[in-house]
Formats: sequence, C-alpha cells, structure tokens
Amino acid sequence: MSIYCFANNQIQIIEKAGVPVTDLLVQRGYGIFDFLRVAGDKPLFIDDHLDRFFHSAEKMRLTIPQTREDIKNIVKELIHKNQMSYSGIRMIIAGGDAPDGYTIEHPHLIVIQAPLAEPTLHLPTTGIKLATYSYQRQIPDVKTTDYLMAVWLQPWMKEQGADDILYHHNGAVRECPRSNFFLLTQHNVLVTAHEHMLKGVTRKNILQICAQYQIPFETREVSIAEIQNAKEAFITSSTKRIIPVHQIDNYLVKPNYKDSLAVKIYDLLTNLE
Amino acid sequence: MSIYCFANNQIQIIEKAGVPVTDLLVQRGYGIFDFLRVAGDKPLFIDDHLDRFFHSAEKMRLTIPQTREDIKNIVKELIHKNQMSYSGIRMIIAGGDAPDGYTIEHPHLIVIQAPLAEPTLHLPTTGIKLATYSYQRQIPDVKTTDYLMAVWLQPWMKEQGADDILYHHNGAVRECPRSNFFLLTQHNVLVTAHEHMLKGVTRKNILQICAQYQIPFETREVSIAEIQNAKEAFITSSTKRIIPVHQIDNYLVKPNYKDSLAVKIYDLLTNLE
Repeated sequence: MSIYCFANNQIQIIEKAGVPVTDLLVQRGYGIFDFLRVAGDKPLFIDDHLDRFFHSAEKMRLTIPQTREDIKNIVKELIHKNQMSYSGIRMIIAGGDAPDGYTIEHPHLIVIQAPLAEPTLHLPTTGIKLATYSYQRQIPDVKTTDYLMAVWLQPWMKEQGADDILYHHNGAVRECPRSNFFLLTQHNVLVTAHEHMLKGVTRKNILQICAQYQIPFETREVSIAEIQNAKEAFITSSTKRIIPVHQIDNYLVKPNYKDSLAVKIYDLLTNLE
Repeated sequence: MSIYCFANNQIQIIEKAGVPVTDLLVQRGYGIFDFLRVAGDKPLFIDDHLDRFFHSAEKMRLTIPQTREDIKNIVKELIHKNQMSYSGIRMIIAGGDAPDGYTIEHPHLIVIQAPLAEPTLHLPTTGIKLATYSYQRQIPDVKTTDYLMAVWLQPWMKEQGADDILYHHNGAVRECPRSNFFLLTQHNVLVTAHEHMLKGVTRKNILQICAQYQIPFETREVSIAEIQNAKEAFITSSTKRIIPVHQIDNYLVKPNYKDSLAVKIYDLLTNLE
C-alpha cells in the first residue's frame, strides 16, 4: 500500500515526492522540522509542536506558506489516507529554491508520516548507556535539520558500547541529539538544562507534572560533574516519552525500579495523552 | 532549453531531479559537496576538487558509488549536453535513505551544472567589506552542506553594510563561509589560517605560486588583532579567484592597486588555468 505525504504543495505518494536539487535544504542544509507522535488518528500535543515549529521558522527567517489550521488539516488528511495504527509525523520547512544559492525566497512545507512503535504502557525496566561528547549545537533553541554531528558520531558511539550521546559544553550538560536529559540529585531534586539546547515538548510536559504534583525540580545549568552523584537519570522525547539511563560513560546509575521517580512521571505522562 | 544534471543514478532534466524526502540529506542535513569552475568545456583543477571530494566523503563515512573516472565522465557528459559558455559544477554526496533516520546505507551522487560569470581578466579594483563573526564550523576540514549559519547571517551581514562574513574563533581568524582569507603583514609576509577551516583549491594554488615565485608566506594561526596592521587583505575561491578586501569591520585596508601583491598573484593564477 502506498504511503502518502505532503510535498510540492500537494498530497502525493511518497516515492514521487522529492526536494529539488537546487533547494537550499539540499545545497545549504537550510531547514527546520518538528516531529510528533500519532496514536491511531490522534496527533499528540500538536499545538505544542506547532508552537515550536512556528518559533523555529520565525527565528530562521523561514515564512511558512500555510497557516496552523492548514497544517492541521494536512496532518488530518494524511492520517486519514495512510491509516497507520501508530505513527510519527515529520513536518519540514525547506529553505526552497534560491537562484543565488543563499537567499531565502520560497520556503515550502513537507509533511511525512511513518509507522512508529508504540511506547510501552509503563517505563521500560532496562536502561540505556550514554557516552558524553563535547559539542554545542548551533542555533540550539531551533529544531533545525542539522544532525551532522549526531549521524557522524554513530560509529564512535557504538565503539563506546553506548546507545546514545550526551552533549556537553564548557562543563555543562546540554542534551542528547534527539532528546532532553534529566537527572535526580542526591537531594531529590529533578534537574534539567535551561538554555543552549532544544526545549522538548515532553520536557515541558514533565516540568508541568512536577509543578502540579509538588515534585521538586530545577531548570538550570547542569554541571557534567553532577552526573557522578545522580540518583536517577533519564532522557525524554516525543517518540519514547522517557527512557531510563543506567550508565553514563563509566558511571552507573541504577535506581530501584519500584521507587524510581521516572516510573511515576512516566505514568503521569501516559495519562496526559 | 533544458539543463541536464545527474541524480537518481542517471542524467536527467534538472526539473525532474529530486532528493527523496526520506533522504538523510533532507531529514538530517547529512551530505558533502564540492564545486568547481568550468571554462567552456574545461573543468578547472578537477583533480584537486576530486581529491577534496573523496577526502570529505571518507571523513564523513560516505561511500561514493562512483569512481573518480566515473565522475569525470559524468562531468564531461553534462558539459557536452548543457553547452554553457562558462559555468560551475556542483557535486554532492547525499546521505541517502536511512530507514532508522540515522544509519548511512545508500549514499548517492548528484551533479549539477549552472551558468557562472567569468572572472575578470585582472584583479577587480573595487574591494569588498567583511564583517567579523565569532563562529567555528563543525568538522571544518570537510566541505559539508552545512551553511546554516552563513545563510542565517545574511540579513545581519547586510545590516553591517558588509559583502561577506569573516569567521573567527577564540581570537583566531578562520575563513569566510565560501572562501579563504589572506592578509599581508607589515613585514610583507602573506599569511593565512592553517587549521580549523576548509582548505580551498585556490588557496592551495596561491601557496604554490608563493613558493615558486619566492613570495614570503606563512600558513599558521592568524590572530584577529593582526587585521589592524594588514597592508593588504583578500579572499579566495574557485568561483572568483581573488577578491580584494578593503574594509574589515571598521578597519580600512586600501593598498595601492599598482603595487598590490593580490594583482600579481591574480595574474599568475589566471595563467595556471
């Protein structure tokens, strides 16, 4: 069965959709995107994702030709046509054709839907290992299509026996390439970076849950040294909600599953959907 | 008249050539390229450009499906079919389709030809203004398709009344987004950065000319402070050979045209072609 997407200003079969070789996205890597999870026919937290998508576009001087309602309707139509039981939607704004190879003249929207594994009902009991790497994403508050370093580091990451990468810069923890990082301090305060990284929608939902349920939390600069005293650590993303982290470089973090704060927050997140 | 390019493993009309929306180049900005000038039917310094292209590909773990000879034949065929009097050739390696959105599995070649203005016979007498900006390109010895910062800074650059941007980092001059930077010191030594930037083919040719004609030169860390004492400054690229720089931020550099070292080197560069 064919999968439909939105590209070149129309709904079409994904195999036929291409980005022109003269596009700024192809020639200069100039684009932004956002990604959201779809449960059946329900796009989750779509307003939060659209907020960030429009913020990214504005900061990158990319005028989105569609309104929020237009995009919601395109998403709805794709969901209807593709009939996937569980999926992800990727919305991209490409820089568009630029005769001089530099000037943004015709930004355009691409929307792609692809099947996605459903997150488990409760937090996974197995944790992942992160390898830390010194790197600062450029224009970090924008979800650009720049994953050059993340893709390039994949073989290095596997050499470390790690499952994901944790970026840090000048001694401060930033984020993973596709997720935010949280740790629980010895004083039972949940902390996460507050700047120079992308603010995830799941991160935002978790902070709201903390506020609502009186879970002590701080958004602030998180020192890389604090990892050595973490009682818990996890990463968060729209795709996976929460993934427990059980090792960062050589440091082991293994909370008791039953008492884990992540377990509690995961269940509250699930209810939010 | 239609312009032909090479994409999707065939020579085809450029309007029909597209990069799949699922390609790593589109979704993750993962690609490399090189660009060379073509005088009539003669691709200039193609071996130097292919050397760098294959170096970029290797460093980025992108296996080029074609051999050097294959690529030369594609370039030759495009030049023959497109019949442009003066042009530029862009060769791109796109990351290719990655079902997991991350793993490089099917890198592929794109070759595009476009008309280009012929450089003037002698060095232009008018110089440009550069605005300095603190920025370090990621994976700087590779010609990646990442020009996110360069494109994003265009409006800022125009606000400064500048024609191009000069990147520097921790007090050291790096490069312009699409060219290398040279300055002539008070002691008549031509200096240019030696690391953390892309080594241009024109830069290489100029250094060879300096060695051959006993023009004193150094490739080393160039301090941003040295700009204040520059007797001459210019930028170099395959497209333009040399462009004189007459202002950097508020500092004016105006050599006597007749005695200018850039004039002499420009003529020697022209002869090399």
